[in-house]
This record gives sequence, C-alpha cells and structure tokens, in this order.
Amino acid sequence: MRVLGVDCGSTSTGVGILESDGRGTRVLHYGAIRPGRSQPFAARLEHIHRELERLVARFHPQSIAVEQVFQAYNVKSAMQLSQVRGVVLLAAARAGLTVSEYSALTVKRSVVGTGRAEKHQVQRMVQRLLALPGVPEPTDAADALAVALCHLREETTRQRLARNV
Amino acid sequence: MRVLGVDCGSTSTGVGILESDGRGTRVLHYGAIRPGRSQPFAARLEHIHRELERLVARFHPQSIAVEQVFQAYNVKSAMQLSQVRGVVLLAAARAGLTVSEYSALTVKRSVVGTGRAEKHQVQRMVQRLLALPGVPEPTDAADALAVALCHLREETTRQRLARNV
Repeated sequence: MRVLGVDCGSTSTGVGILESDGRGTRVLHYGAIRPGRSQPFAARLEHIHRELERLVARFHPQSIAVEQVFQAYNVKSAMQLSQVRGVVLLAAARAGLTVSEYSALTVKRSVVGTGRAEKHQVQRMVQRLLALPGVPEPTDAADALAVALCHLREETTRQRLARNV
Repeated sequence: MRVLGVDCGSTSTGVGILESDGRGTRVLHYGAIRPGRSQPFAARLEHIHRELERLVARFHPQSIAVEQVFQAYNVKSAMQLSQVRGVVLLAAARAGLTVSEYSALTVKRSVVGTGRAEKHQVQRMVQRLLALPGVPEPTDAADALAVALCHLREETTRQRLARNV
C-alpha cells in the first residue's frame, strides 16, 4: 500500500510518500514543492500540479491523503489553501487515485495518540515512527508524512475490521 | 480579442466566450459545466477542468476572466468555490492564458453602470448588450458572459489609455 500525503500551501506544499507492506512502513520520499512567490497565483498552482504529477508518475501511489482545511482559519488563507487543494484533488482524479481526507484532530490522534498534541510532538512522532535520523525538514514535509502515516494506520484498521465482519 | 468568462461553482460552472474586434462583440459560446452531484468532489473538479480544456482547445481565447470569490460567503461554500477556482486558474496557466479577476462590484458597474445592480438587471443587460434573443440560460452562463463582457470593456479602456499615454 503506497500513499502520497500532501500538506497544502500556496508558498510551500509538503509531500511525503510512504509504503506499508503490513509488517512495516518505509519512507520513499519527502520534501516540499515551493513555487516562487513572485509568480502569478495561477502559475504557482500549475507548478504544484506539475510536481505532483511527476511524483505520482515516479512512485505510483494508490491514494492521496490530505488534511481537511480547518474552517476557522481566516477566510482569505482558507480560500488560498482551497485553491491549492483543488489542484491536488485534480491530480488525484486525473491519475485515478483515491482521495482520503483527515481532520487535524484525526491526524494527531492517529500519530501521537491524542488530538491535543502540539505540532512539534507530531513531528517528533513522525521521526520516531518512521525511524528517521532527525525531524523531517521542512516542517511541511513532516506534516505531509503525518497525514500519510495517519492514512496507512486508518486503512490498516479498516481492512482488519472488514476481515473480521 | 477573445475571452472565456467563467462563473465558478462546484455543481454548475458557467462559461461564456466572447470575441471583440473593436467595433462589436460577438458571442461564440455559452453554457454551463455540470458534473453530477453524486460524483466524489475530486471527480467533479476533474470534469470541470476537462471541459474547460476542451473549450480552450476549441475557441482559443487569449484570456480567462473570473469573478473574485466574495469573502463574506459562508466559509464552507467559499472553500468549495475556491477549489473549483483552483482548477480554473490551472487550466488557464496550462494553456498559457492570462487570468483577469474582477470583483462583483466591478462587473456590475461595467455591465449595468452601477455597482448596486440586482442580479436580474445584470442578466438583462448582458442580453441587450450581446443582442441575444432572451436572457442567457442557465443563469451561471449569464454570469460568465457578464464577467467576460466586463473584461472586454476594461481591456478596451486599458488599451485606449495606454495609447494616449
């Protein structure tokens, strides 16, 4: 099972690709897509979309996992994030990948064990769980790995439950 | 000068293509892209994006004109609209088209002459100015024609001013 986790942002979109074979989880790639701030917004979206398509072509994930945009952001940044999210969902649909969305609460609960975890605790747990030498940088990449990890755990649970029914 | 006006919406995205030769304005196409509501959201975005790419390939507009998402909408619908907007801007960037954004106020002022115009007044003026036999249906198409018309007028003014400088 391979998943591409994405942490949407118009100046930096974090990405992380994980593979799970049922026994363990392997990090295949992580980083951030950073279109130049001086570009028009449409060109930034195009840059993000093109890089996502490259990652999908290179790593062949079966699904994309994204965090739900938190509605309590200020409206302007929620709208900017949503435009990025639109092209992320489009990349998934064009490649025939499933899209799974998780709330920030679910990601924290899944990775740290509590929905009240701080951002740096999530990043530390991502490092530990994936046996990385340090906290993944940039932090957007760590956030993308967190949502990918959350997806693998939720998916494994769903599959176990389905088998027991 | 050819422009594709787009009125973003996740259930219905209005489109209108106008051509201006300096003497008059001609309607080349109008209508609405309506992805099925039963589809997952990512598939709806993909449908909208694909249809826009088809229109661009068929009519070769030089630019896309969209209305700015009004920030006072409720956050949830602003976020849905913004995701659609993301794939519209992406279609523009992929085709190398310029993107022009206009506030609802600017569109009303440009088409009707006052920013306080009602929706039905804008639609009537679109009908009159484009010499259409009736108010363009669906209303999303009329809204798309309105923003396209606004763009042609603003652009003509900009070009005139540039020549006089």
